Amino acid sequence: MADGADRIDETLEFRPRFDPDGLITAICQSTEDDTILMVAHMNAQSLQMTRDTGFAHFWSRSRQTLWKKGETSGNMLQVKEMLVDCDQDCLLVRVEPAGPACHTGRKSCFYRRIGDDGLTLVNG
Amino acid sequence: MADGADRIDETLEFRPRFDPDGLITAICQSTEDDTILMVAHMNAQSLQMTRDTGFAHFWSRSRQTLWKKGETSGNMLQVKEMLVDCDQDCLLVRVEPAGPACHTGRKSCFYRRIGDDGLTLVNG
Repeated sequence: MADGADRIDETLEFRPRFDPDGLITAICQSTEDDTILMVAHMNAQSLQMTRDTGFAHFWSRSRQTLWKKGETSGNMLQVKEMLVDCDQDCLLVRVEPAGPACHTGRKSCFYRRIGDDGLTLVNG
Repeated sequence: MADGADRIDETLEFRPRFDPDGLITAICQSTEDDTILMVAHMNAQSLQMTRDTGFAHFWSRSRQTLWKKGETSGNMLQVKEMLVDCDQDCLLVRVEPAGPACHTGRKSCFYRRIGDDGLTLVNG
């Protein structure tokens, strides 16, 4: 990710840079209000599935499986647009969420603010 | 990052989960218009520097150094709010940017849309 002019990439060729585990970070942002909903990882297969189907697919590092977001909960993420960052090691997936994106039932996984005395619940 | 109920974390204690390299992903979002500006990594020291100074500091993986964003360009990121995700392995840093966040001179590092035939420039 962007940490200097030593990795400038101005190409218009899509060349995702997967990490040594074969993964790329994918940030999911709602097209409704630009909320960051969740962050997960894609491998080449889940990226391809996402592009082919129009619904976000990830790689679960904990379960070591391909994972269609919302497959069990129904809270799928319909992809409206995908962007790549300047060094092509991070994806911004702009989505229309069918429901809460977080497995806690909250709209976003980012529901706790960091303060001097710990965390505070925010964002409902 | 969020990939299942096997890693629920509802604590109000801030316990960032650094990866094996001692890093945590930090997404920088503008408080002005919710644009995702850039994504970088923090180690414990840069996280502490960020909290202590109110300006975003990162760890450069390519240069293996602590890095205050904007130290040379002047385009610092003033931190307004920091959030952590449900499994505490990703930070959302909401910032007021002093100038373009991307080293290419663009406002955001995400200036290319992924399409069937490669990338298209967007976002100026």
